Amino acid sequence: MNAIDHANPQLDLSFSRIVYVPRSLIWRAWTEPERLKPWFCPLPWTTIACEIDLRPGGVFRTTMQSPEGQTFPNEGCYLAVVPNEKLVWTNALLAGYRPSAASDTCGSADASFMFTATIELADDPQGTRYTATVIHADEAGCKQHAAMGFEAGWGAALDQLVAMIKREAQQGSPL
Amino acid sequence: MNAIDHANPQLDLSFSRIVYVPRSLIWRAWTEPERLKPWFCPLPWTTIACEIDLRPGGVFRTTMQSPEGQTFPNEGCYLAVVPNEKLVWTNALLAGYRPSAASDTCGSADASFMFTATIELADDPQGTRYTATVIHADEAGCKQHAAMGFEAGWGAALDQLVAMIKREAQQGSPL
Repeated sequence: MNAIDHANPQLDLSFSRIVYVPRSLIWRAWTEPERLKPWFCPLPWTTIACEIDLRPGGVFRTTMQSPEGQTFPNEGCYLAVVPNEKLVWTNALLAGYRPSAASDTCGSADASFMFTATIELADDPQGTRYTATVIHADEAGCKQHAAMGFEAGWGAALDQLVAMIKREAQQGSPL
Repeated sequence: MNAIDHANPQLDLSFSRIVYVPRSLIWRAWTEPERLKPWFCPLPWTTIACEIDLRPGGVFRTTMQSPEGQTFPNEGCYLAVVPNEKLVWTNALLAGYRPSAASDTCGSADASFMFTATIELADDPQGTRYTATVIHADEAGCKQHAAMGFEAGWGAALDQLVAMIKREAQQGSPL
């Protein structure tokens, strides 16, 4: 399954893993603010705020906090929402599909690039196939995202997501 | 009916008119390449090419030609497609929701701004209410678009669209 129509290795980054938790709980962890904040940033960074309007054109806003307490707001816009299957958003647009000024959308001063991200969930005999893809306008943006540690960072966040779901299951209290 | 969720007069341009042609024919004139090219550019400019993949994430590409023969390609991406009712696209994204580099999406060198456009069609006792709205990232982009003659240009194109439909009706050959 391709995350995007025309994958371009010069412009796109992607990783795919099998995880042993249900698709529906991964979906909820991505789409409910109180279930996103615990895992979304690799520790010791944290996600201190999250706003989700889960529809095409709706806002996806998070605020990350560094270990030193500095905060980094991020705003994007959902483009496609297929429950338990596919979530697409971009930071090139804000709520209501308004184009974003480059400096407004990325938290850190050196991250002035735009991307569109896709999370795909699919059944697998052993669990759930989880695929994350980010596509960029140009090679510079793609390389910058790779150098920032896209796969390691999103992978560490996924580890935290899976750990959260398993912890709740062991406690008998998945929300 | 609001074209967008949160209209901002500093960032948005809009005009609305009643036209005396059916909604379905206006929709076709906006969404079928051979029916778009005749009217899309105010004469003496012309539209010499058009590609439409009418779905969210699909491409909307046009090539305009100046009276002197210079060509200006434009590429955007559809965001919402509600037949006979609402069409939304942006030049901040390309096909497949890929963010666009500023210099790639606008034909003329001085038009390095991004916008999202909405065409809305609604029933009116006398015909069809036609509303065109363009929203921008910042005041500079909005002012630039206004200075380029947004309302006059899009209005002249609409006149050409309506004239095309009426001409066909008189000839008894609306496609």
